[in-house]
Amino acid sequence: MISAMVFDGPDRPLRSSTFSRPVLGSGAALVRNHLCTLCGSDLHTFFGRRREPVPTVLGHEAVGVIEELGPGGLVDVDGARVEIGDRVVWAVAGSCGTCFFCTHDLPQKCESLFKYGHQVVTPDRGPLGGLATHCHLLPGTAVVKVPDAVPDELAAPAACATATVAAAMRAGGDVRDGVVLVLGAGLLGLTTCAMARANGAGEVVAADTDSRRLELASQFGATRTVLLSLDREELVDRLASLTAGRGADVVFEMTGAPPAVELGLARARVGGTVVLVGSVSPVGSIEVHPDQIVRRCLRIVGVHNYAPPDLSAAVRFLAANASRFPFADLVTRRFSLADAEAGFHFAETERPVRVAVVTN
Amino acid sequence: MISAMVFDGPDRPLRSSTFSRPVLGSGAALVRNHLCTLCGSDLHTFFGRRREPVPTVLGHEAVGVIEELGPGGLVDVDGARVEIGDRVVWAVAGSCGTCFFCTHDLPQKCESLFKYGHQVVTPDRGPLGGLATHCHLLPGTAVVKVPDAVPDELAAPAACATATVAAAMRAGGDVRDGVVLVLGAGLLGLTTCAMARANGAGEVVAADTDSRRLELASQFGATRTVLLSLDREELVDRLASLTAGRGADVVFEMTGAPPAVELGLARARVGGTVVLVGSVSPVGSIEVHPDQIVRRCLRIVGVHNYAPPDLSAAVRFLAANASRFPFADLVTRRFSLADAEAGFHFAETERPVRVAVVTN
Repeated sequence: MISAMVFDGPDRPLRSSTFSRPVLGSGAALVRNHLCTLCGSDLHTFFGRRREPVPTVLGHEAVGVIEELGPGGLVDVDGARVEIGDRVVWAVAGSCGTCFFCTHDLPQKCESLFKYGHQVVTPDRGPLGGLATHCHLLPGTAVVKVPDAVPDELAAPAACATATVAAAMRAGGDVRDGVVLVLGAGLLGLTTCAMARANGAGEVVAADTDSRRLELASQFGATRTVLLSLDREELVDRLASLTAGRGADVVFEMTGAPPAVELGLARARVGGTVVLVGSVSPVGSIEVHPDQIVRRCLRIVGVHNYAPPDLSAAVRFLAANASRFPFADLVTRRFSLADAEAGFHFAETERPVRVAVVTN
Repeated sequence: MISAMVFDGPDRPLRSSTFSRPVLGSGAALVRNHLCTLCGSDLHTFFGRRREPVPTVLGHEAVGVIEELGPGGLVDVDGARVEIGDRVVWAVAGSCGTCFFCTHDLPQKCESLFKYGHQVVTPDRGPLGGLATHCHLLPGTAVVKVPDAVPDELAAPAACATATVAAAMRAGGDVRDGVVLVLGAGLLGLTTCAMARANGAGEVVAADTDSRRLELASQFGATRTVLLSLDREELVDRLASLTAGRGADVVFEMTGAPPAVELGLARARVGGTVVLVGSVSPVGSIEVHPDQIVRRCLRIVGVHNYAPPDLSAAVRFLAANASRFPFADLVTRRFSLADAEAGFHFAETERPVRVAVVTN
């Protein structure tokens, strides 16, 4: 039997529901979920700041074990055959593989995209999200096997935060010996600090408005941290001092706050790259002087979600750095599946980097 | 004897002046100028819309023949030895080759940059611009030999417009079979149309407010042209229809007008690239929604001037396409060096794509 906590909309309690096992099509799989971490976007949906079609099963940062495979089996992103019993993570988005975007390096913009944790629940398909005992992986889902070195708590966010950071790193280009500025020290920013250091950045400057998060940033590879004020003028002064001299070779903007985006553009060096990641919802506009982009030869790249190779890179990064950076400490509380709702409220009020819902 | 028309500032007549031959240092050369075309930025300086240190010799789109070489001789961008009598063009900017920017693919931002047509004239160095019988090429100047297939009128703009477009193409990436939108159909835009077609673009849409320029665009490879209005709302409607469906794979913004920059950002497809070239002076700002950059996975690249390999690519492009596109027709009037001032006034009032000053 499959159980799930179904989301019927904000201000409504999560509803415990059971499903029969889905009939797996070719290329599909059924995963027995171990654990699902709650992402900021799950909180936005749960608390009504973002609208999603309901009823749905939330959760797209999950890890679990393959329990059943559809006809023909399954191959992972790296080309290895997936077997029953393999521990895996899977991409937040599934794609068709044949449309314009799938054939132009943007499978995350597939014309028939579906996203785990965002699809309407139907009795025949069963849960397509992490807050359930099982997740039905539809054909076209990128799957990556998780090495033993990566515990569940680290593996779960791979499918969202870590893979997105891997995509951002790919967009940012070579950071070796460079100065990297990371705006925002939530899970995305902390992972960016760590990945930039692992990729050989000479200097990693982390900036946030929360001093606790900056302490974490130092543990995740930041060589300098700067406490930002929400006062705009003070922000400008601080950031001017923070990348003194030439400015940053690569800026990673993980907050989505318009003033941070402006500051990122201002503090990139001539010829530098600004990778925008945080601005996933329309929270406002910024004023841009196009001649600054031209005369400073800036490169600005928007990164939204990621492609399957980024998920593979994320898992490799975690496997190589699980003990170097304290990722395991970021999941500060665990909740049972039946208590998932308490997890949402804890995450919202206490703002830990992540809470986990243990599903099996 | 070397003669030059010296610019002492806007509202002052060009002053004919003579210089003795400079003593050439190692890596330097003296070119006998054939011809210099007047660039839009020369007009801005001449008419006082842009301030440059004076006295100076304007002109940075020049072609000529090597008349003398400094000790040790000279090697061109492609590694070939330059000989006396070779017809050459040279980069608008010279660079040191050793500073941070020179060693990070941005020689045009060299910490000790000098720019032809922009340096103060001194008696010992002689003219460092095109509006003279000779130009003193300082060490660190990228030189490219001009094949016989490229007449002087085509070769002269290589060092500014054509090489800048080559740099823009490099920034834009692969355009094969793609939809390219070119905003602005002056020399930069026309060259962009032609180079995009030569590089295999499937569709090249040119947009301008001047119908004469759009007629030219059709001759330079545009497959569709759109007459833009200066009325903003009409602009939005026109451009929406002009890249119907998915939007442009690559947008080249060559006008520098803020509304055109905004429209370029709006009409790039998801995952598309917007190359900003025209915004070389601070003429205003635009409103940008960062979530549009992120969620549409846009890449925005500012291109200012170019690197030496772009000058070489520009000359190769002209050699291969001199007869395919009517570049020679773009220089509509010729003036003698003594009459250079009349050339400026003609260019300002008649707005031809280019006028030439024949210097020898």
